[in-house]
Amino acid sequence: MNTHPADLLDLAISRTGSPICVGLDPVLDQLPEACRSARADVDAIEFFSRGVLDAVAPFAPAVKVQSACFERFGSRGFASMERTIAHARSLGMVVVLDAKRGDIGISASHYAASAAAMGAHFVTVSGYLGPSGVAPFLDAGLGAFVLVRTSNPDSDRVQSLRLADGRSVAEMMADLVAELGAARPGSSGLSAVGAVVGATKSTDGLALRARMPNQIFLIPGYGAQGGKAEDIARLRRPDGRGVLVTASRSVIYPQPIQGESWGVAVAQAARKLAAEIQTIVEQ
Amino acid sequence: MNTHPADLLDLAISRTGSPICVGLDPVLDQLPEACRSARADVDAIEFFSRGVLDAVAPFAPAVKVQSACFERFGSRGFASMERTIAHARSLGMVVVLDAKRGDIGISASHYAASAAAMGAHFVTVSGYLGPSGVAPFLDAGLGAFVLVRTSNPDSDRVQSLRLADGRSVAEMMADLVAELGAARPGSSGLSAVGAVVGATKSTDGLALRARMPNQIFLIPGYGAQGGKAEDIARLRRPDGRGVLVTASRSVIYPQPIQGESWGVAVAQAARKLAAEIQTIVEQ
Repeated sequence: MNTHPADLLDLAISRTGSPICVGLDPVLDQLPEACRSARADVDAIEFFSRGVLDAVAPFAPAVKVQSACFERFGSRGFASMERTIAHARSLGMVVVLDAKRGDIGISASHYAASAAAMGAHFVTVSGYLGPSGVAPFLDAGLGAFVLVRTSNPDSDRVQSLRLADGRSVAEMMADLVAELGAARPGSSGLSAVGAVVGATKSTDGLALRARMPNQIFLIPGYGAQGGKAEDIARLRRPDGRGVLVTASRSVIYPQPIQGESWGVAVAQAARKLAAEIQTIVEQ
Repeated sequence: MNTHPADLLDLAISRTGSPICVGLDPVLDQLPEACRSARADVDAIEFFSRGVLDAVAPFAPAVKVQSACFERFGSRGFASMERTIAHARSLGMVVVLDAKRGDIGISASHYAASAAAMGAHFVTVSGYLGPSGVAPFLDAGLGAFVLVRTSNPDSDRVQSLRLADGRSVAEMMADLVAELGAARPGSSGLSAVGAVVGATKSTDGLALRARMPNQIFLIPGYGAQGGKAEDIARLRRPDGRGVLVTASRSVIYPQPIQGESWGVAVAQAARKLAAEIQTIVEQ
C-alpha cells in the first residue's frame, strides 16, 4: 500500500473531485446554538467537530485541524482533538494537523511522533530553524506544509523583505522547501514537503510556483479573507494539481438554511466550495 | 502586585542569585532507572519531572518546559505537563513554556490562553508570520521569547542570510523583537518580549545585543552543545542582566554521584551551573 502522504492526498482529491480542505477551527461562541445547548465547552467543540466532519466528508478530501482551538482547553481539549482526528480518518479524510510547530532534533521528533500517533498525515511547520526543523516530520512518515508566504497582512514585515541575492525571504524559504522536498517525491510526482502560500499573496505566487514545481500548496485566504478565483488559478500547476484550498469560516459557520439543520448548511457550503474550486483548477 | 513577566523573572533571578533556567526535556530512555522502574511511560516522565523541579528550585529561578516531550504522549502527556507546570509554580519558579508556536490572530490567542491557563509566564514563539504572531501572547499577559538566532548548526541556512539592506535575517528579526518589545517595558527596564539567541551563535550576538538592549535573551547551547563562558559574556547587557542561560542535559542527566540519589546529582549540577553563570555575568 502506498502511504506517501502526497500520494494519499492526490488520490483523495481524485476521489472527491476537488482539492479543498475544510479548516476545522471551532470557537465556542461561534458554534450553532444546537451544539452548545446542554454541553460544556470542550464537549460542544467535539460534538460540532464531528458534525462538521460528517457533513463535509463527501465533498472535501482533507480537513485541517487547528490544534490551538483544542489546546485552548488543555489536556481535555487535546483528548478531544485525538478523537476528532480519529473520526476524520474513519471517514477516509486526509488530516492536516495545523500545529505550526517549529522545533529541531529530538523535540521535532516528539512533535512528529505525537502527530503520527493521533493519525495526522500532514503537519504545518515553521522553517525558520532550518532543515532540521522539517526533516524529523518526514522521517516519521508525515508530510509537511512549511510556512512560506502566509495570508495575514503583516507577514510582509518578514516574508516580503529582499535578500542581497535578490530573492525575497519567502522565495528563500521556497528554495529550502524545494530542496528538502526533492528527496521525498511520491509516485504522483508531488512531494511530501509542501508549502503554505496564502491566496491573498498570489502576486508573489507565480514566482513561488516556479521555485516549487512539485510542491502541494496549502492555500488559506480564499473567500472570507479576500482571496479570489484568479488567485487560485495563479498558484496551481500547469496540470491543475498541486493546490489544496483551505477554507474555514465560510464552510463551518455558513448562513443558516431555513428549515434545515446546521449540518445541512455546512454540507451545502462544502459542496459549493468544492464546485467553485474544481472549476478553477480544471479551467 | 507587579505581574509583568520580565519583572517577575528579574526578581526571581535576584532571589536565587544566578540567571539560569533548567531545560526540562524528559525523554523516557534517558531517565534514571529509579524513575522508570514500576512506572509506565508518562508516569515515569512526570515522576522524574517533579524530582528535577524539587532538586533545582533552590538554584534555578526558571524552568523551560519542553512541550514536545509531553505532547509525545498525547492528551495524557498534556495533562502531565499541566501538573508539572503547576508544581514548578508551587515552588516559586518562573515557567517558560517551550512550545515554539507560531500562529496568528485567534489561533495565537488560543495558544496564549492555553499557556496562561497552565500557569506559564513565558512562551517561545516564532516570528516568521510577523507581529501578529507575537502580539496575542503579550495581550494575554505572557512574555514571549521570539526565535531570533537558534543554536542548531543549520539555522545558518535561514538566519545568517543577508538582506539587501545589510542586515542578516536574524538581525531583521531582532529589530522586530525590539519594536514589539518597546511597548511592553517592565519596571526592571527589561521588556516582556525577549529573544532566543544560542550561545553557539555568540559571534552574531554583539550585534543582536546592540539591536535589543532591553531584551532578555533566552540562551540555549551552553555546555553540552559547545557554548562557553565567553559566549555568555558577549550576550549579557553591560549591567550583567538580560540573559537567561538554559541548560538541559547537563543538569537533568548528570553523572551519578556515588552513594547519592539521582535527585542529589541533579541538585549538584544545577548548583554548579548557577555558580558558573553567576561568575560570568558578574565579572
